[in-house]
Amino acid sequence: MKIGIADTTFANIDMAKYAIEAIRKNSKHEIARYTVPGFKDLAVACKKLLDDDNCDIAMAFGMAGPMPIDKQCSHEASLGIQQAQLMTNKHILEVFVHTDEAKTSKDLFEIAKNRSEKHALNALALLKGKTELTKFAGTGRRQGKEDIGSLKL
Amino acid sequence: MKIGIADTTFANIDMAKYAIEAIRKNSKHEIARYTVPGFKDLAVACKKLLDDDNCDIAMAFGMAGPMPIDKQCSHEASLGIQQAQLMTNKHILEVFVHTDEAKTSKDLFEIAKNRSEKHALNALALLKGKTELTKFAGTGRRQGKEDIGSLKL
Amino acid sequence: MKIGIADTTFANIDMAKYAIEAIRKNSKHEIARYTVPGFKDLAVACKKLLDDDNCDIAMAFGMAGPMPIDKQCSHEASLGIQQAQLMTNKHILEVFVHTDEAKTSKDLFEIAKNRSEKHALNALALLKGKTELTKFAGTGRRQGKEDIGSLKL
Amino acid sequence: MKIGIADTTFANIDMAKYAIEAIRKNSKHEIARYTVPGFKDLAVACKKLLDDDNCDIAMAFGMAGPMPIDKQCSHEASLGIQQAQLMTNKHILEVFVHTDEAKTSKDLFEIAKNRSEKHALNALALLKGKTELTKFAGTGRRQGKEDIGSLKL
Amino acid sequence: MKIGIADTTFANIDMAKYAIEAIRKNSKHEIARYTVPGFKDLAVACKKLLDDDNCDIAMAFGMAGPMPIDKQCSHEASLGIQQAQLMTNKHILEVFVHTDEAKTSKDLFEIAKNRSEKHALNALALLKGKTELTKFAGTGRRQGKEDIGSLKL
Repeated sequence: MKIGIADTTFANIDMAKYAIEAIRKNSKHEIARYTVPGFKDLAVACKKLLDDDNCDIAMAFGMAGPMPIDKQCSHEASLGIQQAQLMTNKHILEVFVHTDEAKTSKDLFEIAKNRSEKHALNALALLKGKTELTKFAGTGRRQGKEDIGSLKL
Repeated sequence: MKIGIADTTFANIDMAKYAIEAIRKNSKHEIARYTVPGFKDLAVACKKLLDDDNCDIAMAFGMAGPMPIDKQCSHEASLGIQQAQLMTNKHILEVFVHTDEAKTSKDLFEIAKNRSEKHALNALALLKGKTELTKFAGTGRRQGKEDIGSLKL
Repeated sequence: MKIGIADTTFANIDMAKYAIEAIRKNSKHEIARYTVPGFKDLAVACKKLLDDDNCDIAMAFGMAGPMPIDKQCSHEASLGIQQAQLMTNKHILEVFVHTDEAKTSKDLFEIAKNRSEKHALNALALLKGKTELTKFAGTGRRQGKEDIGSLKL
Repeated sequence: MKIGIADTTFANIDMAKYAIEAIRKNSKHEIARYTVPGFKDLAVACKKLLDDDNCDIAMAFGMAGPMPIDKQCSHEASLGIQQAQLMTNKHILEVFVHTDEAKTSKDLFEIAKNRSEKHALNALALLKGKTELTKFAGTGRRQGKEDIGSLKL
Repeated sequence: MKIGIADTTFANIDMAKYAIEAIRKNSKHEIARYTVPGFKDLAVACKKLLDDDNCDIAMAFGMAGPMPIDKQCSHEASLGIQQAQLMTNKHILEVFVHTDEAKTSKDLFEIAKNRSEKHALNALALLKGKTELTKFAGTGRRQGKEDIGSLKL
């Protein structure tokens, strides 16, 4: 199996590195990396990884600023990623970090690293089959922070 | 007939379980389940269920948080689901719960369970044909809460 | 000619009924009806009417609540309808009523009925050809309320 | 060459008339007109003009009200027009007027007429080739109001 | 290799000029230019450059005003550009300047020139291959302003 990794020069954390480490530690899948300027370049980068490089799944790493225009741009990037998945019938795990999620640089780094690693494991699970994650269905899993668990009544 | 059930590990209620129970109780349709990390992974999961597993209809179970970014993400997920339906010419019933719909955990659970069960019955009705629900057209049916009935003048 | 009528069990007014009466009164076109749970199910319903049932035009009847999430959902439904038209090269007249358009139940009913009837006549006109409505171009026609007429200088 | 003109009965100014006059005065291109109820019907109307009537370019004339729901609808219409262009590889010049652009009826009329005429000339220029407008690149041209010219430092 | 350059007569800075200078200075790639009225015409212009003129990559230069309607229009333009990339499997670097990014005309000009030049170099890098920019992954590069560098902990 082959995993496509698309990331950006815009982000100020090398998130892909942490995902690649997690993939290598837990699988023997091949990895193809593609670095683009910003997150609006990620959808087509992922589509090219899936179409041209025959990746079986892709991960898109991006970082969004705190301003309204940044939210608008991340929305455009996300819609492109939605569309790229439907055109290829393959998953693209969107690993985006919004800088206003964190109060300190350290928090931001922890969120980015944790989200990248956990989504790398999600990618590995999805490659195993449709029901690999079913044992965790509705269990409140989170990437970038602690799982919240199932709703307690 | 075959019904695709796509759900997430993000949600903290196992909504699909209630839908599956309702389907089994009321039909002999085959069920294919697909669990993904979050609701932005649902559109392609449903498309794969419809395309690869030859499901006749799909249901997409997701849960959205209360923050503006959560609304943005649910909007992206919904637009992907719109597009997946048009590409396959098959229905995908979107069964999303927004956590700000409920005031208590118990309310949230009741909404999620009720919406999942009622939409499972909607899926069964749609599989029967285009006019199966016509007797209820314009009658103010709701999923997740009480029906409001037809407008009284 | 054949007209597709897609409507919902969510709406609390049977708008399609008024459109069907107007079509029957003014034409001999065949009608195919398709009732779905909510307005987000309308785009694919219309596409199926146009593709599978060979309808020449479709009408999509929906009702939207007053909350921000309702606006978001109607936006998603509308974008799906835009896309379905472009994929089929056929018109889908969107006949949506927003409950916050009206102050009373009676007003809401009048808007819904008037809009449904007028758009049924629009559908008949569009079936006649590209310039059937040209005599009314720029004349401020409205559905659901009074026409405003051409701008007076 | 053939120019498609799509307009609405919703608008209260016959914008297409001014565009057609400008086209006739400055070219011998054929014109095909298509009048639809509202601006959400324009995208597919333009696509049909480009696909079925073999128009080389289209113009879409619409008018949007001042309310939030009007902005939402114009957004949907515009996204449909974006998509129709990409599906046909032909331009559709969007000539929309927002009623809140003007303070008086006279202003509104002047904006609509000026925008329609100037965009008709833009359509003629685009039909001449990719670099016909390059001499005006970055020169602050406006339709509906005065050009602002190049930025002065 | 061939680079498509699409720009507008709406912008009041000739951004494409600075990109073309940077491309000529750093490569021998062929350039095809296409000037359109406004940024909503850029997506199809780029698609035509990529499809009809066999460009290997495109750049889209646009300028957006400060009003809400301007943001809406830039959003529509951006979504069209996302889609055009996915339809062609080629990059379109979006080089948009929002006039509210700058406090003075001089600032605006500097942002526009810097962003155009830096994105021209990004285009050249992307033409070299998928990992040409990987050495800068997660290093906080910016176009239109100073790079922010990697996050310091």
